[in-house]
Amino acid sequence: MKGVILGVQPGVQIVDISHEVPPFAIQEGAFVLAQAYRYFPPKTVHVAVVDPGVGTTRRPLLMEAAAQYFIAPDNGVLALVMAREKHKVRCITADRYFLKPVSRTFHGRDVFAPAAAQLAKGVAPSRFGKLIQDYLRTSWDQPVRTGKRFWTGAVLKTDRFGNLITNFHVADFPGILESPFEMCVGIHVVRRLANTYGDCPPGEPCVVLGSSNYFEVVVNEDSASRKLGCCTGSPVELRWPA
Amino acid sequence: MKGVILGVQPGVQIVDISHEVPPFAIQEGAFVLAQAYRYFPPKTVHVAVVDPGVGTTRRPLLMEAAAQYFIAPDNGVLALVMAREKHKVRCITADRYFLKPVSRTFHGRDVFAPAAAQLAKGVAPSRFGKLIQDYLRTSWDQPVRTGKRFWTGAVLKTDRFGNLITNFHVADFPGILESPFEMCVGIHVVRRLANTYGDCPPGEPCVVLGSSNYFEVVVNEDSASRKLGCCTGSPVELRWPA
Amino acid sequence: MKGVILGVQPGVQIVDISHEVPPFAIQEGAFVLAQAYRYFPPKTVHVAVVDPGVGTTRRPLLMEAAAQYFIAPDNGVLALVMAREKHKVRCITADRYFLKPVSRTFHGRDVFAPAAAQLAKGVAPSRFGKLIQDYLRTSWDQPVRTGKRFWTGAVLKTDRFGNLITNFHVADFPGILESPFEMCVGIHVVRRLANTYGDCPPGEPCVVLGSSNYFEVVVNEDSASRKLGCCTGSPVELRWPA
Repeated sequence: MKGVILGVQPGVQIVDISHEVPPFAIQEGAFVLAQAYRYFPPKTVHVAVVDPGVGTTRRPLLMEAAAQYFIAPDNGVLALVMAREKHKVRCITADRYFLKPVSRTFHGRDVFAPAAAQLAKGVAPSRFGKLIQDYLRTSWDQPVRTGKRFWTGAVLKTDRFGNLITNFHVADFPGILESPFEMCVGIHVVRRLANTYGDCPPGEPCVVLGSSNYFEVVVNEDSASRKLGCCTGSPVELRWPA
Repeated sequence: MKGVILGVQPGVQIVDISHEVPPFAIQEGAFVLAQAYRYFPPKTVHVAVVDPGVGTTRRPLLMEAAAQYFIAPDNGVLALVMAREKHKVRCITADRYFLKPVSRTFHGRDVFAPAAAQLAKGVAPSRFGKLIQDYLRTSWDQPVRTGKRFWTGAVLKTDRFGNLITNFHVADFPGILESPFEMCVGIHVVRRLANTYGDCPPGEPCVVLGSSNYFEVVVNEDSASRKLGCCTGSPVELRWPA
Repeated sequence: MKGVILGVQPGVQIVDISHEVPPFAIQEGAFVLAQAYRYFPPKTVHVAVVDPGVGTTRRPLLMEAAAQYFIAPDNGVLALVMAREKHKVRCITADRYFLKPVSRTFHGRDVFAPAAAQLAKGVAPSRFGKLIQDYLRTSWDQPVRTGKRFWTGAVLKTDRFGNLITNFHVADFPGILESPFEMCVGIHVVRRLANTYGDCPPGEPCVVLGSSNYFEVVVNEDSASRKLGCCTGSPVELRWPA
């Protein structure tokens, strides 16, 4: 992919955000993108290829949001950015930018990378295809309210430290930092809100407000994932007020 | 290695193709290089250091092929590029470009990186050493014909999805996509040729023509490596016509 | 972190030395930095964030050494560079360079990356904070002498090949390459000094002088870590003369 990009636009600055999203882990890819994009300069082109549907009829998308560009398959990998930013979405149909012949198994190289390079080179978004409204909507980008004081969400990502990052975003629960709440993960009820990892008593699961403003369930200097037997996709219930 | 390169040629663009080739896995390194090189611009300098023989008498090579440069130890890591492209090979003897003292265990830093940086800076290939013909020939870069309708090859690489990438290249079997064939991997006989990963019935091993034109044995949304108990180096037999 | 850096100083060249230091592994981070820094050009800014204490009162440091800059938490990750180079250390107090609001869990992004980018942009070190003397001293950066011919050190890092890299630096034991010595790792006494990995008899643990001038215990084409049951942090005893 980088070779293709540099062939189209020599000298462009390429940054690897992550190559560690596990295969097929669309939610985790969505989270990795959502926590990173806002720290990049305007006009950055993000290429997000978590693409189990490569070679099928799923469509390639070009999204404009937050004064940046996002190129990705239409499978939800952009859902968390969409949930936070105004966005315009196009279906990329202009195959004149693709690398021919387009393979059936590596659209990252043949479709997404060349489109990204053309965008970086200055080609206008409108030249890639028409605006669409019927892109995929996901159910996991936001928790669902299930009762007066109950919400059910999920673990979006298990990071390399074993921290369980949930889809509970602090902005969606105004006042939550000022009153007690409980977060249920597996068979554990976590009540302690710690300011930072280092403030958690060793061995005790705590909730921390992560650096991207999603709540995380963590165990200080240990893996919450292993200790609680949970991982990406595990359900998380919020009870608030506790 | 990058520090050394930037010391010689500040501002040069460095691209990481992969740091995930397992230790000593020359075949897999050869495959990673073979699938990537052709997408890079002319005059790209590829540095391929899979080097179990570091510090012994194995020679450092500089190869010109496909209008690009390749720097690597003489251990077969260039074999798959050689099999596909016309090539000229030199033995790098000009130690004036090396980082002194040359360590016994890290020629990537002391030999290959500085030579690559000098090439990128414009030093002519002929200044690095003489053309040679006696570089290492390998047996695994091509399948071997063992009967009228039998060929024995091998798994070149197990990718991170568990797909088994073989050394059967579609160009070496003209017409194969039009008539049935069987591929035997471990104790399994795989008969279904799928257009793409998504077209494979869940759980059933299929053959897919990979994005680099080598055949792959895959299991949709699962690991073929784990399901079939095979990995890099495992033998693969082609029976064609079936 | 890279997005923040590029926002401050567009076009700056960013090099990834490693993202594979395990969580909380300060010693290993220190080693990775110590083996790499000297090969980078003057004025390079190194950012070393192995930071279990993020969000606590541990201080951010800016060190000048070897005509380069080092930005890191005050937790020992700079100890091996300090042991080898003259150095001046400042505590970074100038929060005008930080990304606001500073999160409690990701100082890499909010503190270290923006400070590094400002340094790369030309801001003078003195503008970040005052020189200090009371930065953390470590016990593991040097072996301890325990008898006339005994020293106790430790494994600093287990590399991806399973080689056990010790904190015994050849410069601290003048003459050691000319007379026999023993290195005890786990219950094994290793007596053979090999010139290079390839010179070690298969299966026999050997000592090799690594490319960064620290002694390593290795097993040719195998993992010394697995064979000897040792890993980062394991004690290593040197007996010399044997």
